[in-house]
Amino acid sequence: MKTYKSYLFDLDGTVYHGNEPIVSAIHFINKLANSHIPYGFVTNNSTRSPKQVAKRLNGMGILAEPWQIMTSSVATASYLQAKMPHSALYIIGEEGLFEALAAFAQTEDKPDAVVIGLDRAITHEKLSKAARFVANGAALIATNPDAMITTESGLVVGNGALVAAVAYATKTEPIVIGKPGAAIVEAAIKQLKLDPRHTVFVGDNYDTDLLAGIHAGIDTIHVQTGITTDLSAYKIQPTYSIPSLDDWPI
Amino acid sequence: MKTYKSYLFDLDGTVYHGNEPIVSAIHFINKLANSHIPYGFVTNNSTRSPKQVAKRLNGMGILAEPWQIMTSSVATASYLQAKMPHSALYIIGEEGLFEALAAFAQTEDKPDAVVIGLDRAITHEKLSKAARFVANGAALIATNPDAMITTESGLVVGNGALVAAVAYATKTEPIVIGKPGAAIVEAAIKQLKLDPRHTVFVGDNYDTDLLAGIHAGIDTIHVQTGITTDLSAYKIQPTYSIPSLDDWPI
Repeated sequence: MKTYKSYLFDLDGTVYHGNEPIVSAIHFINKLANSHIPYGFVTNNSTRSPKQVAKRLNGMGILAEPWQIMTSSVATASYLQAKMPHSALYIIGEEGLFEALAAFAQTEDKPDAVVIGLDRAITHEKLSKAARFVANGAALIATNPDAMITTESGLVVGNGALVAAVAYATKTEPIVIGKPGAAIVEAAIKQLKLDPRHTVFVGDNYDTDLLAGIHAGIDTIHVQTGITTDLSAYKIQPTYSIPSLDDWPI
Repeated sequence: MKTYKSYLFDLDGTVYHGNEPIVSAIHFINKLANSHIPYGFVTNNSTRSPKQVAKRLNGMGILAEPWQIMTSSVATASYLQAKMPHSALYIIGEEGLFEALAAFAQTEDKPDAVVIGLDRAITHEKLSKAARFVANGAALIATNPDAMITTESGLVVGNGALVAAVAYATKTEPIVIGKPGAAIVEAAIKQLKLDPRHTVFVGDNYDTDLLAGIHAGIDTIHVQTGITTDLSAYKIQPTYSIPSLDDWPI
């Protein structure tokens, strides 16, 4: 087993299950903190701000500060700053996305890009505005491609479904930022000033977490505490697969 | 030019443009009425009832009764009656769809099918319910696959976009009833008791109207009064293409 200099963690299924902390992960992360080994968290959730996510982790006994949290909204802001820094946006989303994109102008008059994050107050009018702007040439940018997500109120459609509606209406392929894309991992590495050669991505879900790490070209550790239980079908294997973080020495 | 015994018409682009009647079509249809030649109308609009559509046509000076109108909602009811007659449904849509499906039970407890028509009051909760039911095995049925449609309030996303959201969330292929599918044309032929060999479908839009006629195996007349102006790219040509219905003898 390789010794890594820094760690990135998925959240749900890796660090907690809904409101239940995963004890092995909590222990491991706090050992990293005590040993001054850098770590961060990478989440497709676009609705919460890094501050809100950090507060939630703190409430579970995990040492985490907002700058250690890379949400798909912050990664989207990072992408836009790099690729279209002076663009005016039409935004569909919740607090976490609007906060992340606060530095950009917003307009309903020929926006350069339509950015869509999960919006549980989505309306036909918002979708129609987005589609009209994209049909008129605006880029279509998705914070993440989640199909369905687990929330306090059960399984609900994720952001990918809202984006699919606009993509279908406009026959346009969206630019997708979150996992399993590399952009969100790259944004975390940049924000935390990590060396990708010595950084490992820890996650439970092959199709999102491990693929995101693989796409970003960094090592991956599969923890068998969440969604993916059988890796045999996958052509590209994670670097390691372990029952839980109790089985990983720092 | 062949003499047909009955006619089916698309509406927008063929009979009117929004609120503007197309004079050549009005004249032609009223000549059919005076000559006792059967005719009907086939529309992907799922939100209005046949009665409402007939009233609108009457207001434009066209003789039309509700039984002559085949909406995608009525075609969906016809499909369900044939394929899953005792099914309990979860319905997303507007008045025209709920009215068409009034004979079916509605449930939020393991519905056999989720039926989606355009709903301008769509919510994240409705989409999530639909996705949960489909994920649990309900069939996903779309009244029509419209991407964007023109309304009084401009271009808005059509029903296909709402269906795409649920299809994406559940990785499920929908059963699609409206044009360019054959089912809605077949439902019109059945309801009007027409002989398909002597019936022609008149429409302006190749990708919806003419393809629907072609898929249903009946002759088609392309009128150059609407969306499709150039047929050269299409492999399967309509039976005829004419500038307007002024150019068609009964």
